[in-house]
Amino acid sequence: MVIVLKNNASPQKVSELTQRLERSNVKANLVEGVHSTIIGLIGDTLHIDTEAILANECVEKVQRVQEPYKNANRKFHPDDTVIDVCGRKVGGGHLQVIAGPCSVESEKQLMQTAIACREAGATMLRGGAFKPRTSPYSFQGLRMEGIELLLKAKKETGLPVVTEIMSLAHLDMFADVDVIQVGARNMQNFELLKALGRCDKPILLKRGLSSTLEELLMSAEYIMSEGNSKVMLCERGIRTFEPMTRNTLDISAVPLLKNKSHLPVVVDPSHATGLVKLVGPMSLAAVAAGCDALEIEVHCDPKNALSDGSQQLTPQAFTQVMKKIKALAEFMGKPVDDVG
Amino acid sequence: MVIVLKNNASPQKVSELTQRLERSNVKANLVEGVHSTIIGLIGDTLHIDTEAILANECVEKVQRVQEPYKNANRKFHPDDTVIDVCGRKVGGGHLQVIAGPCSVESEKQLMQTAIACREAGATMLRGGAFKPRTSPYSFQGLRMEGIELLLKAKKETGLPVVTEIMSLAHLDMFADVDVIQVGARNMQNFELLKALGRCDKPILLKRGLSSTLEELLMSAEYIMSEGNSKVMLCERGIRTFEPMTRNTLDISAVPLLKNKSHLPVVVDPSHATGLVKLVGPMSLAAVAAGCDALEIEVHCDPKNALSDGSQQLTPQAFTQVMKKIKALAEFMGKPVDDVG
Amino acid sequence: MVIVLKNNASPQKVSELTQRLERSNVKANLVEGVHSTIIGLIGDTLHIDTEAILANECVEKVQRVQEPYKNANRKFHPDDTVIDVCGRKVGGGHLQVIAGPCSVESEKQLMQTAIACREAGATMLRGGAFKPRTSPYSFQGLRMEGIELLLKAKKETGLPVVTEIMSLAHLDMFADVDVIQVGARNMQNFELLKALGRCDKPILLKRGLSSTLEELLMSAEYIMSEGNSKVMLCERGIRTFEPMTRNTLDISAVPLLKNKSHLPVVVDPSHATGLVKLVGPMSLAAVAAGCDALEIEVHCDPKNALSDGSQQLTPQAFTQVMKKIKALAEFMGKPVDDVG
Amino acid sequence: MVIVLKNNASPQKVSELTQRLERSNVKANLVEGVHSTIIGLIGDTLHIDTEAILANECVEKVQRVQEPYKNANRKFHPDDTVIDVCGRKVGGGHLQVIAGPCSVESEKQLMQTAIACREAGATMLRGGAFKPRTSPYSFQGLRMEGIELLLKAKKETGLPVVTEIMSLAHLDMFADVDVIQVGARNMQNFELLKALGRCDKPILLKRGLSSTLEELLMSAEYIMSEGNSKVMLCERGIRTFEPMTRNTLDISAVPLLKNKSHLPVVVDPSHATGLVKLVGPMSLAAVAAGCDALEIEVHCDPKNALSDGSQQLTPQAFTQVMKKIKALAEFMGKPVDDVG
Repeated sequence: MVIVLKNNASPQKVSELTQRLERSNVKANLVEGVHSTIIGLIGDTLHIDTEAILANECVEKVQRVQEPYKNANRKFHPDDTVIDVCGRKVGGGHLQVIAGPCSVESEKQLMQTAIACREAGATMLRGGAFKPRTSPYSFQGLRMEGIELLLKAKKETGLPVVTEIMSLAHLDMFADVDVIQVGARNMQNFELLKALGRCDKPILLKRGLSSTLEELLMSAEYIMSEGNSKVMLCERGIRTFEPMTRNTLDISAVPLLKNKSHLPVVVDPSHATGLVKLVGPMSLAAVAAGCDALEIEVHCDPKNALSDGSQQLTPQAFTQVMKKIKALAEFMGKPVDDVG
Repeated sequence: MVIVLKNNASPQKVSELTQRLERSNVKANLVEGVHSTIIGLIGDTLHIDTEAILANECVEKVQRVQEPYKNANRKFHPDDTVIDVCGRKVGGGHLQVIAGPCSVESEKQLMQTAIACREAGATMLRGGAFKPRTSPYSFQGLRMEGIELLLKAKKETGLPVVTEIMSLAHLDMFADVDVIQVGARNMQNFELLKALGRCDKPILLKRGLSSTLEELLMSAEYIMSEGNSKVMLCERGIRTFEPMTRNTLDISAVPLLKNKSHLPVVVDPSHATGLVKLVGPMSLAAVAAGCDALEIEVHCDPKNALSDGSQQLTPQAFTQVMKKIKALAEFMGKPVDDVG
Repeated sequence: MVIVLKNNASPQKVSELTQRLERSNVKANLVEGVHSTIIGLIGDTLHIDTEAILANECVEKVQRVQEPYKNANRKFHPDDTVIDVCGRKVGGGHLQVIAGPCSVESEKQLMQTAIACREAGATMLRGGAFKPRTSPYSFQGLRMEGIELLLKAKKETGLPVVTEIMSLAHLDMFADVDVIQVGARNMQNFELLKALGRCDKPILLKRGLSSTLEELLMSAEYIMSEGNSKVMLCERGIRTFEPMTRNTLDISAVPLLKNKSHLPVVVDPSHATGLVKLVGPMSLAAVAAGCDALEIEVHCDPKNALSDGSQQLTPQAFTQVMKKIKALAEFMGKPVDDVG
Repeated sequence: MVIVLKNNASPQKVSELTQRLERSNVKANLVEGVHSTIIGLIGDTLHIDTEAILANECVEKVQRVQEPYKNANRKFHPDDTVIDVCGRKVGGGHLQVIAGPCSVESEKQLMQTAIACREAGATMLRGGAFKPRTSPYSFQGLRMEGIELLLKAKKETGLPVVTEIMSLAHLDMFADVDVIQVGARNMQNFELLKALGRCDKPILLKRGLSSTLEELLMSAEYIMSEGNSKVMLCERGIRTFEPMTRNTLDISAVPLLKNKSHLPVVVDPSHATGLVKLVGPMSLAAVAAGCDALEIEVHCDPKNALSDGSQQLTPQAFTQVMKKIKALAEFMGKPVDDVG
């Protein structure tokens, strides 16, 4: 950690500051410059509060040098984490494709869609039982009934189930779910993250709409610091000024996250773009950039969907997109998992 | 609602679409242009899902004309909402000043600060018992003990208490709190909003870090649609590219929110700027723009604060700032409430 | 164009407005709803000023339905534009790779780099003679001398030359350059765009740091409306909140621009990311998404470069990246142009 | 400047780096930590290129400690700069109000508007002769004829004239103009800035749509480093995600710029908000925050304006707003200049 002092910092104040700092088990190293003086802090600064240092009148700014995350940091865990989901390996040598409807709407809708996804080559099933909607007047999901339908679809197709949690009060209902998803709007719902850190299930953690990658990694750290290290990081588009797409898919997050962390990286081109016609090209771009899994929305009848109709592929369109994904994944050396 | 059709839309698909729409109790009015055709939807479109319409292949885009919020909309409730907090009126002819520490840290720290705030003219007391922190390694708040200390400080100073909730699982602990605050990171924690809509307490709802004002109003709508209409809207800075301040205080939100909605508007210059030296000028700007309340962080010893030290005023500095706020509020015709 | 009227719009004001509008050769079609009334404008609305309509007190908002660009619009020119640069086709069935140093620094530096780029398979040479730098104290480019060195390098290697213009006052100096580049900061330098529209050279137009794709297309429209239709659109990263990369490469711009426009699309992963280690993965992602050309920075000695050292590949690294690009481009069916 | 080294940096590479750095007249000070080692650079680092340092493989990141601007920096020029414009002092003890139409459209329109502005208490006249418009099909300004009309209006009303330049090729036409304005889209048109730095006129420099304050100060530095120190900094709104206003007026820029720099600060609430009804409240907020001048758009007939009709006040509305501005400015101790 580097502390930049003000030009006119009084030696007495600076000495008080360094003494206070050294009481926190770090060593303070003074470097005097012509125009400014800095203090270099040496030791474990993870627990030091930069804001409290800034409150000293002799301080101009404080800059962290070390990354503030440890469990999620590749520096301390050089090997890739591979997460096992009913035999599918996320983060290993195969690409996983999680497909299914935005919302679970009915048994018929879910079964038709799930079977079609399976046939096209999807390796896991997604579906929303609890739906975070901007408007209280929009469809809010089938809730517990939705989860039961997902488990039925799993029995029917063999596909492991991924579904989103919206409140720690619902945690018991997720007992038989295979992967618990945390949505973008809950990425910093810290009480929920801590509760998930104390359960033994894979977590698919989505990046917030305008969160930085470091904030995403810190949210993973919340889960991991409670004991659960099975975290998948998911890029699902960030808010930008571009109105043609709902969000902007940040593909560079894929190589960056894989560089900074050992956790597997999932990409969701459906929410990121909000446009059916972009799901194909952006899936290919994500695969070329090295992602470990894709999450794609498919619906057997998008124009009657109860949510996000414009971004859900028909089974026919998904089958076409899957052909290209399979070919490219094979070419890139990380083929789609064969779950036949 | 206006639906723009594609150039080559087949008459049959368009006719199917209009028939489907009219089943939802709206009238579809076709306007044929040279380059494009539009459908104007007439009636209550609040429950119509724009995404499902977009999923029709003949549709190019869908634009909402009506605001999607009703309870929070000034069009349907022309008079200002005035919220009573132990006799203080928020949204009436007086300015309220909510002051206190970022976090409740100890009895001594809270009492010293609360008494100083009261003496400087604050009309309510704030203090964090549950703290949303980016890092799991930072101080997380005293939780229930913090709430008990706040209630003790209320008894001592007579100031009503404002404190933040982080999970609906904690709702019982807030039984004696006067105003429940929802933080920026929870603005779209919809399950929490619904639970707060079913309780009978004033809610101070903070705008998300990159939320639009319409999204803020929709979150207020979540609370109000469950029956609780005592919602205060709080501008606390939005994320921008400017690194000199933590966030950018959007002062234009004050006249805009008061124009679109009847709910009172609070401004938090401390979180918005993160800089002690900006709290004074930005408080004055907010008052000049017509806000109903200010929320300002004050700490008896900022450089030893356990959170956000750099943005908390000392009691001395707060007293100076309050003098200017009082004079300007008087000049603007909405004086600081005299709670003597 | 759709005009939404205010609830309480007086019939007389509305009638005045529609009469004024119809004088501009469009037909105004009134659609009366329960909560609001809209006017649908039919005809060529390209020349109608939405701001002037908004100034009418009876108007609530105005929404454009038609795209405001014509020459750049694929609707009016369904076939891909293919631009010939000394025999290389940009926008045709081959991928072009424009490589070279950020700045031209010396004859030796440029020749070494250009030859290495040629050997690795680049099909055009880039190099900055005029450099837009945030600080007046940074290296500003060799200017005319830089252009002369580029032309010398072209003679030596056979690679056509791409270089950036910063002011229309310099236009004469670009007489022998093959492609004139307009940088992100000049994307809305409208006087420059008009001047380039009157010359007969291919223009590589970079997207502004926080410009929308529609604004980029409108800037292309400025050039095209003056007669020059040889415009290449270049995605080079947009400003977001992510600090790990200099900008965020918006890969979805590739399929979107190709969908909305017939112009070829170039991607610059070097400026977008600012990080050598991301140039490879992001080049592959861009190729997978369907771009027509890549622009990549290469320097024979990056750590002594006078600008942007951290984003320039060494010739060795570029050779490695080119191998992967060639293989993927071949696989995607748009091989790198063979200029042997 | 602080250089953070990678964990595994080889001592030899580090030694090569420090030797290279010390050749640039700075002293390199090594601070070895447990997890990372940093180099503190002491001396004048203004000319050191951070990118070139980053290109060294042993370097993880580089952080500037000193501000990269000198002429614009309050540290080196503690006293406020006061700019004289025909007797009006910008940056002194009085508030200046620059008012007038967005575009000069005709003699009648300009004269009517200018006289009305004068009567309401404006102290300078603005008006666009060259207009930067997103679309080539929108009104582009009267150009030289517009400047002549402005000078005629100056003769008639005695108000000094502020007007925007779009290209250095037009500089001669601005010989009799009192203040040359640089628009947001040209804030980083560095060739233009350098040319303006060599002329002896006050420059009103507008902040770019998504520029940081440091970038604005660096653009001021471009002008000042060529010899012209008469620069006014103008906040005119930044691009954010909020669609209700055209841009978001960053009022905190006022105290921040006055803290970091000695240059006067102007605020333009008309472009920032794009909404007539917000011009009043935001002008008051800017005055309360301490600005030195306001720039407000006024048009004698906004609904027939050729540009930006929705943000221009009628003379009647401007007169009302000016009354409030005058009263508040008086109260704040920086009264509107009395140019009677």
